[in-house]
Amino acid sequence: MPGPEESSAQLSHVDAGGHVRMVDVSEKAETLREATARARVRLQPQTLALIERNQIAKGNVLEVARIAAIMAAKATPQLIPLCHPLPLTHVGVSFELQREQGLILIETSARTTYKTGVEVEALTAATVAALTIYDMCKAVDHTITLEQAYVARKSGGQHGLVEFSPESEAPTP
Amino acid sequence: MPGPEESSAQLSHVDAGGHVRMVDVSEKAETLREATARARVRLQPQTLALIERNQIAKGNVLEVARIAAIMAAKATPQLIPLCHPLPLTHVGVSFELQREQGLILIETSARTTYKTGVEVEALTAATVAALTIYDMCKAVDHTITLEQAYVARKSGGQHGLVEFSPESEAPTP
Amino acid sequence: MPGPEESSAQLSHVDAGGHVRMVDVSEKAETLREATARARVRLQPQTLALIERNQIAKGNVLEVARIAAIMAAKATPQLIPLCHPLPLTHVGVSFELQREQGLILIETSARTTYKTGVEVEALTAATVAALTIYDMCKAVDHTITLEQAYVARKSGGQHGLVEFSPESEAPTP
Amino acid sequence: MPGPEESSAQLSHVDAGGHVRMVDVSEKAETLREATARARVRLQPQTLALIERNQIAKGNVLEVARIAAIMAAKATPQLIPLCHPLPLTHVGVSFELQREQGLILIETSARTTYKTGVEVEALTAATVAALTIYDMCKAVDHTITLEQAYVARKSGGQHGLVEFSPESEAPTP
Amino acid sequence: MPGPEESSAQLSHVDAGGHVRMVDVSEKAETLREATARARVRLQPQTLALIERNQIAKGNVLEVARIAAIMAAKATPQLIPLCHPLPLTHVGVSFELQREQGLILIETSARTTYKTGVEVEALTAATVAALTIYDMCKAVDHTITLEQAYVARKSGGQHGLVEFSPESEAPTP
Amino acid sequence: MPGPEESSAQLSHVDAGGHVRMVDVSEKAETLREATARARVRLQPQTLALIERNQIAKGNVLEVARIAAIMAAKATPQLIPLCHPLPLTHVGVSFELQREQGLILIETSARTTYKTGVEVEALTAATVAALTIYDMCKAVDHTITLEQAYVARKSGGQHGLVEFSPESEAPTP
Repeated sequence: MPGPEESSAQLSHVDAGGHVRMVDVSEKAETLREATARARVRLQPQTLALIERNQIAKGNVLEVARIAAIMAAKATPQLIPLCHPLPLTHVGVSFELQREQGLILIETSARTTYKTGVEVEALTAATVAALTIYDMCKAVDHTITLEQAYVARKSGGQHGLVEFSPESEAPTP
Repeated sequence: MPGPEESSAQLSHVDAGGHVRMVDVSEKAETLREATARARVRLQPQTLALIERNQIAKGNVLEVARIAAIMAAKATPQLIPLCHPLPLTHVGVSFELQREQGLILIETSARTTYKTGVEVEALTAATVAALTIYDMCKAVDHTITLEQAYVARKSGGQHGLVEFSPESEAPTP
Repeated sequence: MPGPEESSAQLSHVDAGGHVRMVDVSEKAETLREATARARVRLQPQTLALIERNQIAKGNVLEVARIAAIMAAKATPQLIPLCHPLPLTHVGVSFELQREQGLILIETSARTTYKTGVEVEALTAATVAALTIYDMCKAVDHTITLEQAYVARKSGGQHGLVEFSPESEAPTP
Repeated sequence: MPGPEESSAQLSHVDAGGHVRMVDVSEKAETLREATARARVRLQPQTLALIERNQIAKGNVLEVARIAAIMAAKATPQLIPLCHPLPLTHVGVSFELQREQGLILIETSARTTYKTGVEVEALTAATVAALTIYDMCKAVDHTITLEQAYVARKSGGQHGLVEFSPESEAPTP
Repeated sequence: MPGPEESSAQLSHVDAGGHVRMVDVSEKAETLREATARARVRLQPQTLALIERNQIAKGNVLEVARIAAIMAAKATPQLIPLCHPLPLTHVGVSFELQREQGLILIETSARTTYKTGVEVEALTAATVAALTIYDMCKAVDHTITLEQAYVARKSGGQHGLVEFSPESEAPTP
Repeated sequence: MPGPEESSAQLSHVDAGGHVRMVDVSEKAETLREATARARVRLQPQTLALIERNQIAKGNVLEVARIAAIMAAKATPQLIPLCHPLPLTHVGVSFELQREQGLILIETSARTTYKTGVEVEALTAATVAALTIYDMCKAVDHTITLEQAYVARKSGGQHGLVEFSPESEAPTP
């Protein structure tokens, strides 16, 4: 059999353009990697009030969202096709409620000592927290919108510390 | 053993406030349910150009994002703690590139004939498509931001057709 | 090729004894099926006090255990090899703390309208709740023991209502 | 809609060519669907002898392969991107050892009452049984080859009964 | 945006009490960790006789339970919300039948070289073995009870060797 | 309690013959491990033409198969019961179409630095690529057959480089 790299007349190679692959990180050094992601969810103020008073029929919204976020961080390599499996050593999730604007701010952090970074894990955790908030409150509010999700900070690896903040981040009250 | 509903002096019942549970839909009718979700991802224009020319090192970004979205729709009950498992009969994903604004618009649709709706499945698909775009392009662009994700339309079930569009949806060029 | 049921001299059939298979339920009627399971976890009284005061370092033990239980009920067909996949329509979990005996009583209920019962789903939920309690408290208490887990009640299907209670169930104060 | 390579003013639609999607089966009737798949694994005769005598160090090869096959049938929608989730009502696996030729013949059957067929589930089960045989015996035999896997029979659905047998199926002793 | 730790008048911080998180083990040393767990299942003596004679309709009960246990050990981080993913290097399962008492004793062991222990993996394996026994025999015996499950021994890590045995462990014949 | 290895009159030990277990690799050295697997799929020439022209209704067959293969490599420890979880550092998939013979040749490669090899991961990837091709084309071709799948090459570990090629590999045009 001709190797897949040697074409002949009757062969058509398909690998040229698409070349989807899980990037080779075999030679990379293991270093401490950290990442922080943020997501912002807009709800109707009365929905936020129900969450704060723990009166949403499905249960404690933020507690469920927090656990969903942690489990989603661990599930990232099964969810995002080209992500490398990696040994997460920490996942944290915190929430801040901005009552007057009707906003929930989600911040997640992830950590590992490995050859690749954990920013996708942190971002997946933050967005799944937002999806869980949607799921738990959708019976009383069909306007819930994930307004913004991004990686705010990552460190470790060859690029060192990278920080980012979208222009429109700060909602003026 | 006293049933968990009958407390005595030395017992402390824990179910009162939290009451997290998978809502009982046993008695609901099976009807055709449909949902459409949208997500918007902002990238640097040159990143968008690389995607269009299929020059991102990890491979064809939109094709991978599309498949990730479909598989995520199916994984929704494993990802979102209180979602019911349901027999998805269709999942579709489409993309629109707005080159000048540096935007990718994602639209997903999901369908089932069942006792509960599929809006979380559609929203999960749209968000995971966005996460996949982030993952595949993060090596060349650390500013990628999921700017917006919401359920635009759902039908079937007791509420009938519900449509929603956030105010800030249309970005003016 | 001879069919796998027709052996000849040189063949050795392997299906006779072992015959592991997912039992055929194609012809069974879809009826409402319900099941209740119970599990009992023994901890040191001071561990129970920490749980009640929400002072366990890993977080709110019962809330995490509850969510783990619900997600485990949904994961049952992936976990228990010969279980049929089925559309769970409800999962509930409640806890009762018996402070003086150092016990947490777990009760789970599951429901579906399908061809097979949901007792394994209910029992899996109860047991995974217990495992989660172990995991969250093991740093402060290495004596945590799942003392008992069983299916207390199932209904629906050809056997109708079945109730069971082990002799040693009621711990005398 | 313009094709993905042909842009118009500022938009470029990407859905035309690729159009990967989970096909819509919402309108299809639920009927009894059955499928049978076969796979053939070639090993060195002495490996087959070790399997028969249950002397492979990792354990009972065929029992593990059988259970792996059943679980893989249930995992098919998570593994094959565009497969619909469906309620499997039966999975069976049988093996036939052809000692002189050094062959294991695997036959799997799957059943459901649903809108789509179960041939991919049956084929996935047969192939994963073969992979498991490879895994358990690779320490003593690096020549193990999955020589053939195909769907031999499917029934139910609009095409009715379809049977297939590849020309080269029967290995002559 | 004020950081999630700096509150102002209109903010309500939610992280204080609940603080569910995956504990940070980044700085812990990698050492050899081992754990042994035990579980005890009570069945009617005639059920035990059917198991021993391999006459349970669903197949070889102990073989299926053993494989389910091994796979469950690997699935632990997906099942138990705050467990760290870790590279299991060994999982073993053994059974002992006590015919006269109608008991199956399950013992599992797990091993890794990592920053955290494997006791939850071992305990999950033992309990899932018990759940599988229940599932496979429930058609002939509705009294099957998991009587006891606990971690009997763990070593490695900062606490060194820890052994535990519940008082009521030894059932007198 | 007598240990599971010390039997008495009334005990029957079950571990002797079957002894299914996840082999202990705790003491093995971590070295760079690589593996290459190949699979060959036969289709009707007109099906191959539809694939090349991207006219299969379900979408771009090879792109979906490629992604399914990569995700399957990551899912191998969940799919193959006794496989160790390991940190894959690379997965690659390439296709070669032999138009006149109606064949698709699949080649996958996997890499890790760990205590065990990655040949099962590579082989799982190759076979799941084949299963995906079957799934996407089955509506137009019921003769699709996985003709051959094997591990062609592995390196690293105590056996060093091992290469294998089945006799019947090269189909003569």
